[in-house]
Amino acid sequence: MNTSKPRATLADEATLQLDASGNLRHLLTLKGLDKALLIDILDDAEGYLTDPGSLPARSQSLAGRTVANLFFEASTRTRASFDLAGKRLGADVLNLDVNTSSRKKGESILDMIYTLQAMHVDIMVVRDASDGVPAYIARHVLPHVSILNAGESDVSHPTQGLLDMLTIRRHKGGFENLVVAIVGDIRHSRVAMSATHALTTLGVGDLRLISPPVLAPDEDRVRGARILDNLPEGLADADVVMALRIQRERIGNLDGIPGIDEYFANYGISHESIKHAKPDAIVMHPGPMNRGIEIEGSLADGPRSVITEQVTNGVAVRMAVLDRVGKTMAARP
Amino acid sequence: MNTSKPRATLADEATLQLDASGNLRHLLTLKGLDKALLIDILDDAEGYLTDPGSLPARSQSLAGRTVANLFFEASTRTRASFDLAGKRLGADVLNLDVNTSSRKKGESILDMIYTLQAMHVDIMVVRDASDGVPAYIARHVLPHVSILNAGESDVSHPTQGLLDMLTIRRHKGGFENLVVAIVGDIRHSRVAMSATHALTTLGVGDLRLISPPVLAPDEDRVRGARILDNLPEGLADADVVMALRIQRERIGNLDGIPGIDEYFANYGISHESIKHAKPDAIVMHPGPMNRGIEIEGSLADGPRSVITEQVTNGVAVRMAVLDRVGKTMAARP
Amino acid sequence: MNTSKPRATLADEATLQLDASGNLRHLLTLKGLDKALLIDILDDAEGYLTDPGSLPARSQSLAGRTVANLFFEASTRTRASFDLAGKRLGADVLNLDVNTSSRKKGESILDMIYTLQAMHVDIMVVRDASDGVPAYIARHVLPHVSILNAGESDVSHPTQGLLDMLTIRRHKGGFENLVVAIVGDIRHSRVAMSATHALTTLGVGDLRLISPPVLAPDEDRVRGARILDNLPEGLADADVVMALRIQRERIGNLDGIPGIDEYFANYGISHESIKHAKPDAIVMHPGPMNRGIEIEGSLADGPRSVITEQVTNGVAVRMAVLDRVGKTMAARP
Repeated sequence: MNTSKPRATLADEATLQLDASGNLRHLLTLKGLDKALLIDILDDAEGYLTDPGSLPARSQSLAGRTVANLFFEASTRTRASFDLAGKRLGADVLNLDVNTSSRKKGESILDMIYTLQAMHVDIMVVRDASDGVPAYIARHVLPHVSILNAGESDVSHPTQGLLDMLTIRRHKGGFENLVVAIVGDIRHSRVAMSATHALTTLGVGDLRLISPPVLAPDEDRVRGARILDNLPEGLADADVVMALRIQRERIGNLDGIPGIDEYFANYGISHESIKHAKPDAIVMHPGPMNRGIEIEGSLADGPRSVITEQVTNGVAVRMAVLDRVGKTMAARP
Repeated sequence: MNTSKPRATLADEATLQLDASGNLRHLLTLKGLDKALLIDILDDAEGYLTDPGSLPARSQSLAGRTVANLFFEASTRTRASFDLAGKRLGADVLNLDVNTSSRKKGESILDMIYTLQAMHVDIMVVRDASDGVPAYIARHVLPHVSILNAGESDVSHPTQGLLDMLTIRRHKGGFENLVVAIVGDIRHSRVAMSATHALTTLGVGDLRLISPPVLAPDEDRVRGARILDNLPEGLADADVVMALRIQRERIGNLDGIPGIDEYFANYGISHESIKHAKPDAIVMHPGPMNRGIEIEGSLADGPRSVITEQVTNGVAVRMAVLDRVGKTMAARP
Repeated sequence: MNTSKPRATLADEATLQLDASGNLRHLLTLKGLDKALLIDILDDAEGYLTDPGSLPARSQSLAGRTVANLFFEASTRTRASFDLAGKRLGADVLNLDVNTSSRKKGESILDMIYTLQAMHVDIMVVRDASDGVPAYIARHVLPHVSILNAGESDVSHPTQGLLDMLTIRRHKGGFENLVVAIVGDIRHSRVAMSATHALTTLGVGDLRLISPPVLAPDEDRVRGARILDNLPEGLADADVVMALRIQRERIGNLDGIPGIDEYFANYGISHESIKHAKPDAIVMHPGPMNRGIEIEGSLADGPRSVITEQVTNGVAVRMAVLDRVGKTMAARP
């Protein structure tokens, strides 16, 4: 992003997220949020879960509020999830296809934000391919406006991290004694980053980030996790196995990743490789999946997989976050 | 579609559409639906019609339900019709622009469907250029999810068929003694297929499918209809004349269709050619029209034309179908 | 537009906008609307303004009505503004992405309009790059349908004109004694045209249109205004200074506009050039801004700027207009 402003530190961002009373105002990153707050959000989200086939939970807690989905990067599932979460809380939801209109006209991102807040948009859900955009926006909006990060470069995807925590907690009860293995393109994964932030805060037993060396993360970005490059070792006795999407373009173009077959053989989550994990280990994936590359299709569809539950939990978590920032707004003096 | 699964027979699809109690669960094709059910839907739709200028019919019968419009093929009118039908029944409507996001990422169609149903989407309205997609999806969704076909390759467009039947019935009272002439590119027309399915079930007197020989349908796809290539003969004493859209690219590139002028002269529905039909014959077109190619513009705008009524009836028919599958859901044990 | 119909005169359009009782039915242009009506709309709009941070004004005055946004030209802000205005009045809002679907199929604009009104769309908000499209549509719709012009070529943008008037009135109390300076690409600006129509009707003291000679308007389009090409002279003692967006492509390709630096030096609204205006002069811009070309960024963000208020007033004005044409519909015998 060409903003001529220095990138805020993560500590700044964590502070920025809370109002003077410690209530959640923005959700930019899970890093630095305290354990009690994470657990409160998961508890709230749990309250929005209903059985498949029954009507989804609904309320009018955001009636009169306006949520704008500002997706500068294309998305179907995350956009749809926020759209439904907002509508089910009674908000007016504005979906802006930002690729195809204002950016053509060269409008700056801040001018677009100022325009939206002048239209009484209360909550802006922002996805952007550039590092720092959600926090940059959060530092410039009026005091009553909330920014929710819906995916930021390879840095952060906090609602994904929360839905992953909810999914793990519902299956495993807690985090303290768990072995969690995240496998794949860790280096470029905002999903892995947000999961790492949350799991370390929640006191995970053993967190392993497994990838080919060329896709390993910088150590200082993932403090509290172990970086491994051997899949059987990494999966040994794991309670939770999370496969990550790899961009197909990376395969064949990076050291040690000659082709799809080798990648699947060495880092694919399959019926074969999952044998290293505990017999009751769950299999996760943030979607969309490359079946046969990072995960074996029939495993993704089988009884160990909790992948569709992740999607369901995603709507619940987003409702919990939207409701919470709405309450923070309403509590302003 | 590259699904490595055999295409279901039409008989399978007909069965697939009903639940164990015989209630409509999916709408994939009109072929095989019995006459009583077709008439029930038309009767329901009739109840949603109001006068132009008055407020449209509305209810809250789908309140709390979520309808997703999944259009893999571009559409303005059918998408808008389903959008309004869903909103006027109180549903949350999710419009997914599927061309520009997930398919870019190579997500499989089933993974997208599983994602949507995990978000508590109850009804998916699907348009696709490939043969078999709606039924394929219907065979994979959870028991409480309904699939509505909004246009499938050249195979089927059942809500279009229903709106055409409602339009004919309102003008002609019934079907038994009618002569119906469908004219144009029959071979590639899902509109003609669904009209044929419905008209033969409803006991039409005489159904004629009129086209240049190169655009004639395979006989076994249109049992119960007569295939003709002479327009005056086909229109003789017709009560109902339906012109079909022809893709401009076909003209000049197919045997016997040298140019627009020849096509219009030989197969265009015009003030001149309509003289062969009964004096009170109605003129239909599914839209969007190529004026001056398959239909004369001033005829489309004149008193015989029921083309805009077709559009109005389309919203009513879609409300009737949405309401009906919603009731089937609610009746599940 | 290739309609083979003669372009209506502006006088025709003004008449076309009112029903037999003089109530507003369409909003096509501000030219010819009388002063009392303009003031009534501004008064209504004022009633929809609330403080930033509080909930926006809402009503159910359009409940059961359907508003379609038909944008044949890309737009984020105007489309969003109409979308929110419709939703906050309780209407169902249909957003049609008309570039990417029906026009591909070659459907005529009138056929699209007939289709929408057959779906019980009551109000169509139309933006088009061609001159005359909104009035052309207005002359063809059914008596209960209203057309609102959301931007028409370089001819007219009436809701922009109204929001500019509301902004000026709130800061300056009235219009009679004001000096208003509109600066930039007057020749191609529908914003300048609608502001000129409104200001001359409202009895502005002195209206100056300032541009390089090559971008000056034809005199007969802006009767009542003074055409100037010297910025200091044009800004002298101005109460209101409105900068216009210039298309970057024009710079360097037109006589007397050799480059961005020269344009900014000679016609840019800056801390330097604004010194010619009154000390309490307000600075306006319709957005989206080219910072550093037609306006200095820090001035746009400073205390003189009322640019974000213009956006807020835009939603209020559009609610006022939507509500008013809705009442005209409801009053039809």
